[in-house]
Amino acid sequence: MTPELRKDPVIGRWVIIAGERGHRPSPFRRYATAIGSGEPCPFCPGNEGMTPPEVLAYRTDDGDERSQKWSVRVVPNRYPALRIEGSLDKQAEGLYDRMRGIGAHEIVIETPAHDQEPSQYGARQMVEVINAYRDRMTDLLHDVRFRYVLVFKNHGAPAGATLAHPHSQVIALPVVPARIDSELAGAGRYYDYRGRCIYCDILSQEVADARRLVVQNADFVAFAPFASRFPFEISIMPRGHDAFFWTLTRHQMEGLAQILQDVLRRLRLALKDPPYNYVIHTAPPGYPNPERYHWQVEVMPKLTEAAGFEWGSGFFINPTPPEEAARYLRDLEQVMDVPQGHLLAGAAAEGK
Amino acid sequence: MTPELRKDPVIGRWVIIAGERGHRPSPFRRYATAIGSGEPCPFCPGNEGMTPPEVLAYRTDDGDERSQKWSVRVVPNRYPALRIEGSLDKQAEGLYDRMRGIGAHEIVIETPAHDQEPSQYGARQMVEVINAYRDRMTDLLHDVRFRYVLVFKNHGAPAGATLAHPHSQVIALPVVPARIDSELAGAGRYYDYRGRCIYCDILSQEVADARRLVVQNADFVAFAPFASRFPFEISIMPRGHDAFFWTLTRHQMEGLAQILQDVLRRLRLALKDPPYNYVIHTAPPGYPNPERYHWQVEVMPKLTEAAGFEWGSGFFINPTPPEEAARYLRDLEQVMDVPQGHLLAGAAAEGK
Repeated sequence: MTPELRKDPVIGRWVIIAGERGHRPSPFRRYATAIGSGEPCPFCPGNEGMTPPEVLAYRTDDGDERSQKWSVRVVPNRYPALRIEGSLDKQAEGLYDRMRGIGAHEIVIETPAHDQEPSQYGARQMVEVINAYRDRMTDLLHDVRFRYVLVFKNHGAPAGATLAHPHSQVIALPVVPARIDSELAGAGRYYDYRGRCIYCDILSQEVADARRLVVQNADFVAFAPFASRFPFEISIMPRGHDAFFWTLTRHQMEGLAQILQDVLRRLRLALKDPPYNYVIHTAPPGYPNPERYHWQVEVMPKLTEAAGFEWGSGFFINPTPPEEAARYLRDLEQVMDVPQGHLLAGAAAEGK
Repeated sequence: MTPELRKDPVIGRWVIIAGERGHRPSPFRRYATAIGSGEPCPFCPGNEGMTPPEVLAYRTDDGDERSQKWSVRVVPNRYPALRIEGSLDKQAEGLYDRMRGIGAHEIVIETPAHDQEPSQYGARQMVEVINAYRDRMTDLLHDVRFRYVLVFKNHGAPAGATLAHPHSQVIALPVVPARIDSELAGAGRYYDYRGRCIYCDILSQEVADARRLVVQNADFVAFAPFASRFPFEISIMPRGHDAFFWTLTRHQMEGLAQILQDVLRRLRLALKDPPYNYVIHTAPPGYPNPERYHWQVEVMPKLTEAAGFEWGSGFFINPTPPEEAARYLRDLEQVMDVPQGHLLAGAAAEGK
């Protein structure tokens, strides 16, 4: 069976049913990054031949176009959940809706350094990663079959990563994900009633209130959402209203890189290198009401062996009030702002 | 902080923010069933004093009302996510909505036998468990503060259970969970357009199509949903239209017990005692359009170390087509229908 998109007839959510080969269904097979363990790392420099041909790479300019010295590299997923060729072929099956699993599934290899952790990247490295997200989104959205490009990162095995080498994923879809649809609908209702972007209002309130703030810079604010589903969930929003992620300027990319790294560093310090996911939320291309939506990045540490009843009910129990999570992450400021050397020097000075 | 219900301002989903004691936020604390390990099992006969006083128990009639010989026992959760006393005290906080975390959080101790697994219960035992669900729902819904009673089971640590002794949970809520709200809305739209219950139509189509059927009996049908999010996800629906779970007759309870045990047994055989969750979906009390909703039980094995991007996107990748899962579970029929002795006898006869 080739991959297929199917729509839940009641709640309208689309799901990828990825094809299985072989007779016995293997529920344990993951499509995201399932590359056999034991092999050398396919994302490391020197092993470029182990991945499908790259679709994008940023190279340090050493005069040689064919240099392997890349800083970020984007390749098609070797085990894609969706296939790039073909038409959508939308069909009914009784009361159900399905279409062929057309889409793109790419891997952003974030750094040549196998053991580096995103919070440790140099500032420039993180900017390039974000630039790659933007470049791939822009490129993929030229394809009229695609209505959304989902960019996310799974860090650590409990968060779904199956390869250690730092990478994120880009999935181009012929449908808009359910969560984005709900956000567009909710933000639309608010706009109809109040005449303002709900996210802009949330930002104003969070900045004024300050209890849930984690960190800010000139262009972005990171805070723990009022109704956080998970402990230490963080939302990163641009201060300026914009519905589309890909309109990001170089300057804003630097601001996003800085605040994202800062947040990841705080989570790493506070929670001892937790597994986490982040997901970019943006309006779909051509969204006709850009005044109603506000792109953002959602960061979710995976701390609990999550129960499953939330999947069935949509109901969440979060044991950590976001105010406490935010305060804890804010309080790391002193530790983080002072380079290790200074701390030691200070201690030595005190010890005198 | 006492527990609080908070509403996501954009998508309208309510979340319980459970209070934390102590200074350092502990994201690892679970409220569901977090009872210290190392202690004797508080759910075992003889340890009744370790739980809060029971709210319900079914006892075998040996003439002694105070007999400890219970078959099913329901007790308040010792670490409830919600508190039973007080008024809701709904409040705005700028653009946010909150209310006090009023509700009930109970544990259904399904059997006195610590090591028994639901698929191994005697038929009568499972009927009593279902009867307890119904009794607690009915009783809790007399409280006008409650708008929904969520009944679910977490089996196995990866599915959120922290005690081995078989138990399920009952949470009475002053709000309707987001998923149920979406289902009511989606089923309502279908009814407006087609004039029929969408679940009744799904049932007809699934029974006629048969590719996703797992097992049926006189009153219930178990099938793998067309747009399953997870491998081996199963939906159990009553054939007869009814919006409310608690209207279940004794006869229907027997049918549900039988098919639920059958499904759990198949999953256990097929997937080697997988962790799983099940959740009862019902219309809320007083729902004014009972012709539009159809109660059901959702069963979800937890097979993959689920990635987290689904939480952020509402988008799912399921590697196992539901047709394959259903066929695999159906094919277990022969193994299951024939008692072990018969199989051996058959083998011996063949060997002759």
